[in-house]
Amino acid sequence: MTYNQLYEQICRKGSFLCVGLDTDIEKIPVCIKEQVRAASTDESEAIFLFNKQIIDSTAEYSVAYKINTAFYEAAGSAGMLQMERTVSYIKEHYPDIFVIADAKRGDIGNTAKQYAKAFFEKMDCDAVTLSPYMGGDAIMPFLQYKGKWAIILALTSNVTAEDFETLNTTSSATDNAMLLYERVLHHSAKWGNRDNIMFVVGATRPEQLKRIRLICKDHFFLVPGVGAQGGSVEEVATAGMNSSCGLLINSSRGIIYADSSENFAEVAAAKAAELVEQMKSFLK
Amino acid sequence: MTYNQLYEQICRKGSFLCVGLDTDIEKIPVCIKEQVRAASTDESEAIFLFNKQIIDSTAEYSVAYKINTAFYEAAGSAGMLQMERTVSYIKEHYPDIFVIADAKRGDIGNTAKQYAKAFFEKMDCDAVTLSPYMGGDAIMPFLQYKGKWAIILALTSNVTAEDFETLNTTSSATDNAMLLYERVLHHSAKWGNRDNIMFVVGATRPEQLKRIRLICKDHFFLVPGVGAQGGSVEEVATAGMNSSCGLLINSSRGIIYADSSENFAEVAAAKAAELVEQMKSFLK
Repeated sequence: MTYNQLYEQICRKGSFLCVGLDTDIEKIPVCIKEQVRAASTDESEAIFLFNKQIIDSTAEYSVAYKINTAFYEAAGSAGMLQMERTVSYIKEHYPDIFVIADAKRGDIGNTAKQYAKAFFEKMDCDAVTLSPYMGGDAIMPFLQYKGKWAIILALTSNVTAEDFETLNTTSSATDNAMLLYERVLHHSAKWGNRDNIMFVVGATRPEQLKRIRLICKDHFFLVPGVGAQGGSVEEVATAGMNSSCGLLINSSRGIIYADSSENFAEVAAAKAAELVEQMKSFLK
Repeated sequence: MTYNQLYEQICRKGSFLCVGLDTDIEKIPVCIKEQVRAASTDESEAIFLFNKQIIDSTAEYSVAYKINTAFYEAAGSAGMLQMERTVSYIKEHYPDIFVIADAKRGDIGNTAKQYAKAFFEKMDCDAVTLSPYMGGDAIMPFLQYKGKWAIILALTSNVTAEDFETLNTTSSATDNAMLLYERVLHHSAKWGNRDNIMFVVGATRPEQLKRIRLICKDHFFLVPGVGAQGGSVEEVATAGMNSSCGLLINSSRGIIYADSSENFAEVAAAKAAELVEQMKSFLK
């Protein structure tokens, strides 16, 4: 998917919401689990059935789905199969929606190539989240795919982001000092362009988001941390928007686990609609 | 597995070799692929059949197997099933051998918990490689499992390790300057101890390995980069050993793809034996 196609979808839906499919088999509503038990299929089948209902009910509000690979891996290879089915389902029924594998991979070149194959060829994801720790090697292979994206961790939403991401760094005596995540932004933006690189910037740090927008004026930011982690749509939009929106705000737990009754999908849709209502006023 | 159990195995075998199972379906010998075709099973079956023969022929020389998850993910959920079978096979037939999932995961706490579940519960790996970029959150959940290990990236073997890992950092005005990977070592060593934390240190930088040994005297280091990437056993052992050996030197491509004929497993064993021969003189 291109930058412009993504922006067009945002304008059409009046939304820059990304719904996070952190589908934990322990938290799937009982009604779905009973359905699976009655059909005597593998327990992991519940993951896909849950996702399918969440997707069908939230697709009109969301421009992206973010699939957190950890939750699927925790159910083993059977869980990975449910991830593959989920990506295929979105691509078949909602081909305009941007699909992110939230995998935070990062390894040397020959290994990174294999991860790119996994997410872009074996599955048809549009983007993968990646860790910059090992440098350019870990990112480059993902940029060889036309219309696909690398989403690089910059400043994350968690408390211990301050262990390393916000360290002051210098790369030579004459160089200006810069925080580690700022250096990641400056350096890795050169590996590609606004058409194949996005950055992860946590919603929990709006002041820093404002400074990050000055460093990367054109790039899209994937912003987790609204809801359960404490960030707000208003603060993020005010601090981080650019002229092509430039934001994908993610909410996972606040939408998909808002209700555990048989109405879970309708309640998820209502929660998504609430966030989109807040977004609309920022999209003029 | 405990630190002492690992050290005992090293003494018994006169080896600190880790064999890397970077099993690329494209590189599996034709004889294995024909066997799979004849049996009309899924193509990915070749991954397990290849691993099984490599394991059976190298188990007497290796104290650890490192399974590079990217190569299995590139074959989809069917590939992940072959990874599960490989871990089970090692644990069943060679229970003394240390099994590393080379996954380089790293995410916020609630997600890290799911990765720990995937590698330590769903599979019975002894250790997982982890990226420190996001800080302690990303590591802590792995340290809750008794007898299991987090292997944290410090200084990696690839060229672009210098993009960020070797940046000079300061965390406050009064603090001493330190390279990023040194800070990772100092800081993350405090999250656990030598019984549940190891570090990844590339074989391609023996001078730095020497300095790293002074920072972490007791910890085991997982050392990739011998062979295809240019590091040598002698340089690594001279620079990095401690009184309990403290090293797991990994070789992947140099062993498992040394031959592509029907003799591939014997040649792999011979290559492993060569490395162990070099190691023996350092283990007195």
